[in-house]
Amino acid sequence: MSAPRAGFALAAPTPEAWYRAAAGALDVLLVDHANCEKKAASSALGLMFAYADDAALSVALARLAREELRHYEQVVRLLGRLGIGYARLAPGRYAAGLRRALATAEPGRRLDLLIAGSLIEARSAERFRGLAPHLPATVAEFYRGLEAAEARHTDLYLDLARRHAERHQLDLAARHAALAAVEAELATTPDPLLRFHSGPPPG
Amino acid sequence: MSAPRAGFALAAPTPEAWYRAAAGALDVLLVDHANCEKKAASSALGLMFAYADDAALSVALARLAREELRHYEQVVRLLGRLGIGYARLAPGRYAAGLRRALATAEPGRRLDLLIAGSLIEARSAERFRGLAPHLPATVAEFYRGLEAAEARHTDLYLDLARRHAERHQLDLAARHAALAAVEAELATTPDPLLRFHSGPPPG
Repeated sequence: MSAPRAGFALAAPTPEAWYRAAAGALDVLLVDHANCEKKAASSALGLMFAYADDAALSVALARLAREELRHYEQVVRLLGRLGIGYARLAPGRYAAGLRRALATAEPGRRLDLLIAGSLIEARSAERFRGLAPHLPATVAEFYRGLEAAEARHTDLYLDLARRHAERHQLDLAARHAALAAVEAELATTPDPLLRFHSGPPPG
Repeated sequence: MSAPRAGFALAAPTPEAWYRAAAGALDVLLVDHANCEKKAASSALGLMFAYADDAALSVALARLAREELRHYEQVVRLLGRLGIGYARLAPGRYAAGLRRALATAEPGRRLDLLIAGSLIEARSAERFRGLAPHLPATVAEFYRGLEAAEARHTDLYLDLARRHAERHQLDLAARHAALAAVEAELATTPDPLLRFHSGPPPG
């Protein structure tokens, strides 16, 4: 596990109420977690297609996508062992809310996409760590293992963002702060739909 | 390496003229090959999203996508070693042509997508094998290794297609023959754009 780089932490911690709610809805949490791993792989591939001329980025994200896919396989197997069936879940507000905050024009968009990737991985790592004490032992152990991977992915996205910011003289710290504020709002304020990256339940 | 299952072979072999042209345009071939590996992973992910309720399919395709991503990384590294720079290539006619032939309504669409996956992998395996003698030793050795993987993927897609056909009483052999004919037309008739899955050059 690596600590968040100085100045690039999440803007607010996950409220205890979310952990309690998530632990009480393990079936939804795990099915949504499987979706998240799949979406993380898909987002990495999206960046590989969008910035195909950047070999270093593409190879780093291909490796990241492979790791997310392996996690996906592990979650699906865990669902099977726990006897939890697949259910199609309505998407939460998190990914769409974050996407709305991203710059639409280059080179800012690429910076924002990489920062968003870093924030999502950081929130995932935080929640895996925070969830572990609330969960049955087999799931808790699995989640502790995932935390280290997500923390590595946080740093990878941040490194790619930094490299891009330097090349185009963009203000990484300012964009990170702006997007971290949006991310924290989505992840910590009352949210009607409990999901892996949602806010806590209302009331 | 596994031989094609009886009755499910490609409808026509790659013409010698394609191998000669491809060996003479190694830079285009390898850059397009990298794209193909990325697209193969992306298509597998697309099926995982479309048929997310099928855990067996999803896990099998996640593993396949991981393998395609690993190949992608290997091709990009090979490009680097050979000093071949990335170039954005206009897409060939193959994938779009095959897509146009697929059923649009379920359960037929799923069968067709899986058969198409099987045919693309079979064509790739055939070309890796056929290309090897035409290529520099380092590339040839790499391609021989990929052939075995693509042959396994051919069988995996065919197994998934068979399972789906049996469940819905669809005629696998008839659809395979129909799509194999389209695939062979695309891969063996004169084609203005040389690509990994293209036909041979005109004239």
